Amino acid sequence: MRGLVFNAPKDVRVTDVPDPGVVNPTDAVVRVTKAGICGSDMHIYNHGDAFGFDAGCRLGHEFVGVVEAVGPEVRSVKPGDRIVAPFWLSCGECHFCKKGLTTSCVQGGCFGFQAFWGFGGHVEGGQSQFVRVPLADGTLVKVPDELADVDDKVLLPLVDVFTTAYHAAKGSGVKPGQTALVIGDGAVGLLACQAAALLGAGNIVLSGHHDDRLAVGARLGATHTVNSKANADRLGELLGDLTNSFGPDVVIDAISSADSMVHAANTVQPGGTVSWVGMEVFLGAPQLPWDTCFLRNLTIRGGVAPVRSYLPELWPLVISGKLDPSPVLTHDLPLERAAEGYEIMATRAEGSVKVCVSPN
Amino acid sequence: MRGLVFNAPKDVRVTDVPDPGVVNPTDAVVRVTKAGICGSDMHIYNHGDAFGFDAGCRLGHEFVGVVEAVGPEVRSVKPGDRIVAPFWLSCGECHFCKKGLTTSCVQGGCFGFQAFWGFGGHVEGGQSQFVRVPLADGTLVKVPDELADVDDKVLLPLVDVFTTAYHAAKGSGVKPGQTALVIGDGAVGLLACQAAALLGAGNIVLSGHHDDRLAVGARLGATHTVNSKANADRLGELLGDLTNSFGPDVVIDAISSADSMVHAANTVQPGGTVSWVGMEVFLGAPQLPWDTCFLRNLTIRGGVAPVRSYLPELWPLVISGKLDPSPVLTHDLPLERAAEGYEIMATRAEGSVKVCVSPN
Repeated sequence: MRGLVFNAPKDVRVTDVPDPGVVNPTDAVVRVTKAGICGSDMHIYNHGDAFGFDAGCRLGHEFVGVVEAVGPEVRSVKPGDRIVAPFWLSCGECHFCKKGLTTSCVQGGCFGFQAFWGFGGHVEGGQSQFVRVPLADGTLVKVPDELADVDDKVLLPLVDVFTTAYHAAKGSGVKPGQTALVIGDGAVGLLACQAAALLGAGNIVLSGHHDDRLAVGARLGATHTVNSKANADRLGELLGDLTNSFGPDVVIDAISSADSMVHAANTVQPGGTVSWVGMEVFLGAPQLPWDTCFLRNLTIRGGVAPVRSYLPELWPLVISGKLDPSPVLTHDLPLERAAEGYEIMATRAEGSVKVCVSPN
Repeated sequence: MRGLVFNAPKDVRVTDVPDPGVVNPTDAVVRVTKAGICGSDMHIYNHGDAFGFDAGCRLGHEFVGVVEAVGPEVRSVKPGDRIVAPFWLSCGECHFCKKGLTTSCVQGGCFGFQAFWGFGGHVEGGQSQFVRVPLADGTLVKVPDELADVDDKVLLPLVDVFTTAYHAAKGSGVKPGQTALVIGDGAVGLLACQAAALLGAGNIVLSGHHDDRLAVGARLGATHTVNSKANADRLGELLGDLTNSFGPDVVIDAISSADSMVHAANTVQPGGTVSWVGMEVFLGAPQLPWDTCFLRNLTIRGGVAPVRSYLPELWPLVISGKLDPSPVLTHDLPLERAAEGYEIMATRAEGSVKVCVSPN
């Protein structure tokens, strides 16, 4: 079959890779119908050698598809079922899975960084025609029958990018009517606006550097958008006007760089929360203003989203039409053109937010 | 009257200072019956010049006493009332006071660091015979009649040290039956054990360096104590045994040094909270392991305790006898011997935890 592999920084290729099959009795094999290219894929694309990725590593951890085969112990899905695949393997039965923190699954976690697809080791990449899914019962989620006719592009963001944004919005503790600042106009930032709106936030201020993306954010729920690159002073003025100079109740940091985290901590209102979900912290550690954190009683909360645990509360929103995250998927390419998709995302091409590929 | 002043590092003196009086119509004057020496006083004692304290600055922000006089606009207390004085001025009416975050009071906050007694500027020190209290209605709290006969030493910890510990325990979100690690065997750490016990924590593991203080912690609620200086490996082994190797559900860091914060983040269970309340972060910023924070979904929460907001829920505990934080007050000296009290705390004299002075 065909699948995408990392060759070297800025060099990914779709090539022939081995057909997957059921190895363990708890495995499933999924025929991928749509796979996303994620911001964390871009970290590998740009810096894969620094992260220890070797040539030949498979990529892709966002995908939806149809079950092709299952091992003898799989009970929750069967061949022909349409599924979504949360981006982290989970057994569904351990201490952390039972608490809903599926990203700390004791079994999924035993792979360490290889607890999800596309990190080169035990687990295959989702940007391919087929994928072997370990721990299928604890990991895969069957799409509700009510959504039989919905487009894959509505479902695909649920396996990572929307749910990561939702995790950030929930983690921020934003309450109805409150003011949220969302930092970053990548797909997670844009969808964090949508998530904050679903949670009832009053003012949702989106800060980014790209007018075209800010426009998508406004469509998804941002009540105010600021191009903070074009107008550095505007954000502070706007937040001051909206909050009686107290600052936003919460900040959702969808960048999580050393700079953005410090900015978030210095901007959020006393007693507020900085909720961060970006992986930029891996590239440079924030030096938080701890005196400010102390004097203002700030909460700093972040982490990798336990997608599977959120799906039960998200399905009704999708079914009712209240949640459609597909506007962030600006490009849909055949799998064979996946490298072009990486290039579009790497260059932040005008009009682009996020690219998906269609392997089948 | 007599009051304690900072002269130079390691040099505080009780000397003649001006008698306070009502200046603003919202002021009260309090006759101090008992005043504490706090860990943050010790930072001034040790490093006052580095913090910008000049010779002559008054010290002391923990005190209880009796109202001596009030300005014409004070409504909630009157001369003769027995009061406790939370360590941060608050108006009781602003955005933050109404939310319960009295330490971010817009009026108290206008003093910046001088928003509480004993920081040298606008406000006087509590380690003296009398104190002028600005914003008396929003700041002072009358002791309930049911506690008419209770000793000042039971009340004094409520104005800062116990309530700071309680703030940390509440901020940790510890739930009944969970395992809490408390780092630090100073007064806040010992009382954090008591607070965690009141909140229903199951295992309360206290880590410190002083056997005598650890014994006080056990008396106050710690179910396990570890001298982590004498036996560096024991803490990890114990926590592993108690938590199936998952780590404590929460860590209450009553030191909050660069090292302890990193230790806390590396120790707490995935999905857990590091709740920090110490001022050591002012002396050296923690370099948190952000990758761990991300992969484990940690919450880092800390800040200065809004004491006044907690008192309504604490009074019933004191009245019923469930809460008596006085065991941390190991020494009670006349005001004239206050410098000796600082020396006892600076040297962590055997058998000492915290010193209070009796000015009247």
